Amino acid sequence: MKKNVLIIGAGGVAQVVAHKCAQNNDVLGDINIASRTASKGDDIIASVHEKGAMKVEGVLKGHGVDATDSAAVATLIRETGSEIVINVGTAFVNMHVLDGCIETGAAYIDTAIHEEPDKICETPPWYANYEWKKRDLCAEKGITAILGAGFDPGVVNAYARFAIDHMDEVHSIDIVDINAGSHGKYFATNFDPEINFREFTGTVYSWQEGAWQENKMFEVGRVWDLPVVGPSQSYMSGHDEVHSLATNYPEADVRFWMGFGDHYINVFTVLQNIGLLSEQPVTTAEGLEVVPLKVVKACLPDPASLAPDYTGKTCIGDLVKGTKDGAPVEMFVYNVADHKEAYLEVGSQGISYTAGVPPVAAAMLVASGEWDAKTMKNVEELDPKPFFTILDRIGLPTRVQLGGLGGEDKAWND
Amino acid sequence: MKKNVLIIGAGGVAQVVAHKCAQNNDVLGDINIASRTASKGDDIIASVHEKGAMKVEGVLKGHGVDATDSAAVATLIRETGSEIVINVGTAFVNMHVLDGCIETGAAYIDTAIHEEPDKICETPPWYANYEWKKRDLCAEKGITAILGAGFDPGVVNAYARFAIDHMDEVHSIDIVDINAGSHGKYFATNFDPEINFREFTGTVYSWQEGAWQENKMFEVGRVWDLPVVGPSQSYMSGHDEVHSLATNYPEADVRFWMGFGDHYINVFTVLQNIGLLSEQPVTTAEGLEVVPLKVVKACLPDPASLAPDYTGKTCIGDLVKGTKDGAPVEMFVYNVADHKEAYLEVGSQGISYTAGVPPVAAAMLVASGEWDAKTMKNVEELDPKPFFTILDRIGLPTRVQLGGLGGEDKAWND
Repeated sequence: MKKNVLIIGAGGVAQVVAHKCAQNNDVLGDINIASRTASKGDDIIASVHEKGAMKVEGVLKGHGVDATDSAAVATLIRETGSEIVINVGTAFVNMHVLDGCIETGAAYIDTAIHEEPDKICETPPWYANYEWKKRDLCAEKGITAILGAGFDPGVVNAYARFAIDHMDEVHSIDIVDINAGSHGKYFATNFDPEINFREFTGTVYSWQEGAWQENKMFEVGRVWDLPVVGPSQSYMSGHDEVHSLATNYPEADVRFWMGFGDHYINVFTVLQNIGLLSEQPVTTAEGLEVVPLKVVKACLPDPASLAPDYTGKTCIGDLVKGTKDGAPVEMFVYNVADHKEAYLEVGSQGISYTAGVPPVAAAMLVASGEWDAKTMKNVEELDPKPFFTILDRIGLPTRVQLGGLGGEDKAWND
Repeated sequence: MKKNVLIIGAGGVAQVVAHKCAQNNDVLGDINIASRTASKGDDIIASVHEKGAMKVEGVLKGHGVDATDSAAVATLIRETGSEIVINVGTAFVNMHVLDGCIETGAAYIDTAIHEEPDKICETPPWYANYEWKKRDLCAEKGITAILGAGFDPGVVNAYARFAIDHMDEVHSIDIVDINAGSHGKYFATNFDPEINFREFTGTVYSWQEGAWQENKMFEVGRVWDLPVVGPSQSYMSGHDEVHSLATNYPEADVRFWMGFGDHYINVFTVLQNIGLLSEQPVTTAEGLEVVPLKVVKACLPDPASLAPDYTGKTCIGDLVKGTKDGAPVEMFVYNVADHKEAYLEVGSQGISYTAGVPPVAAAMLVASGEWDAKTMKNVEELDPKPFFTILDRIGLPTRVQLGGLGGEDKAWND
């Protein structure tokens, strides 16, 4: 049983996390928000109070912290009495925040793999380059660390586990992420452009036929006919969850498919070919050293600013194929979320919502003890059913289609 | 009679200027090259010697100078004994170099209108915002200043004057600039990307029906069926020469048409819509203030680097319409240049070649006294015939089509 949450980060996802923690502060206790710029946390706190989101009276407070300084993170964990840290800062801070948790005994929850600013798409499995190096230490010290507990990675890992639990053998896991919404801007990314583009500028790793396969971005396309959003163009992409699922289920092909329209691809292609998505610095004629991708980020709309005008739905799910009693079986496990409903509830767009709700559900399971694993876990290594139960209640209900896409459609627990 | 040339700048155009000055150093005397980075001048000097371009033995020397420091420019003019300055540095230095010439009595020749880094497409006529403010001073002090003596502006102003000299009345001047060459890169600009894009990010000014008209870039398109390069898509664009020609020939419509392919327009549109072509600084998440356009420039190929692989031709000319003896007349005056031939001769691509040869022709006319005007002039205010005579000889022959495009085709002096 743990309580009191420290949220690291104050972007669009952190806003959702804060609202959801507030809505469940009877279970979670004190809520503290820490980011480089303390005023961003204050804006989130104002938004929480504006919506009257605090379930019971309690602490909701903002702090300034350099999250790359693990000692400073540890100090803040101690000062705030936090036993659970939800890290939704940039992926560049993960290892530092994790170190702060290991130092203090707090549970650690994040939503993406650690990245170093000057490296992209490193050797698979990506987790092995960073977080998993601390796995033995977490076990030894009894530290609960739940990795990649957003939507994807996160909920989709639980979807895979849930489907696999209904099978004798698993043959393939295809994770499909389609945002069929519209933000009305010429171009925008739905979360931090720097992290978003970095996903697509390197090698696309998939796990197929028992080995890591390499492709280029936009090389392998597929149209999926999904519930609610209909036929959707997607491309095989690199993504965090492929790296843990392939490690845990090496007998299955594991692929990730991200939806892209022609306009996105055109803009991406232009920026990429010119070199503007590079994470390596260039030097201007005036001698200023600057990372092009950071300038593109500065020019693009803040993802949080998209929320008020965002309409339409997302559909994210896993098509899992295997066998049961010797016969082939398929299951599509998925969620459909709505941008406008997300905005009305927590002031954020649907992508932030789907990313921010799950780590709060995970925190509630750590608080209750159900997921307080006292070691490092990826989400597919934990029981998915209590996770789904909370997600159903706090905004991201899980549905399944039996027999694969287009099959009998029902709630996961019907 | 003036002699000894100081070249300001050491980019692709300066390379052509240096080669052409060297080929004509019997007339021009000493050649000195000054740029911010002295080593760039040394590279040009090495290239001149490699091609054996010096017609007679003489001075060819590089210098470092901050061309925005007019006193430093004046000192260098005096130290080198230069009586003619060819300014092919960035357009941001023009007024400072001009001041250095006025200070020392040297003749001034440039190829574009002065620009301030933080302003684009100012109030027309553009020359009135900068150079023309020094016109009275030049006249008073007997300073020869020849403005815009590249190809466009420059040779095309002389083309207009030449055609108009054959008419009683002029009704319209359409300047068409088509580069039908191929550089083999995904995307590149043919001269300084910063200056290139700045031409197209603001209002398109044209002079029509006796007034300045405003359009957006790519709003007005036209296909011209040109000699050698054939039918070519173009768009009405803002350009320097429109501003002097409209002032000197207010009775004529004056328009500038720049050739663009769909790929260029797509890349430009993406960069422009995202804000990456802005000359106004943005601040990155890390707090670094940076001008996006300067970063785009740093990412794009150096225009000089395009030269070795550039193939194909350019066609630049003026379609001038008017009346003669009461009947309508048309004349297309033009030049066709070849990228590969330019590279073989002077190590530069065709766009640099067409821009760099004319100011050397102008310098030779200042040296001979024919264009030593002792005041400030735009090119259409000077006799075009001696200019064409030298251009014919040094690499940019002038041809005409009588009766307009597709009419009888002959050399200008046939």
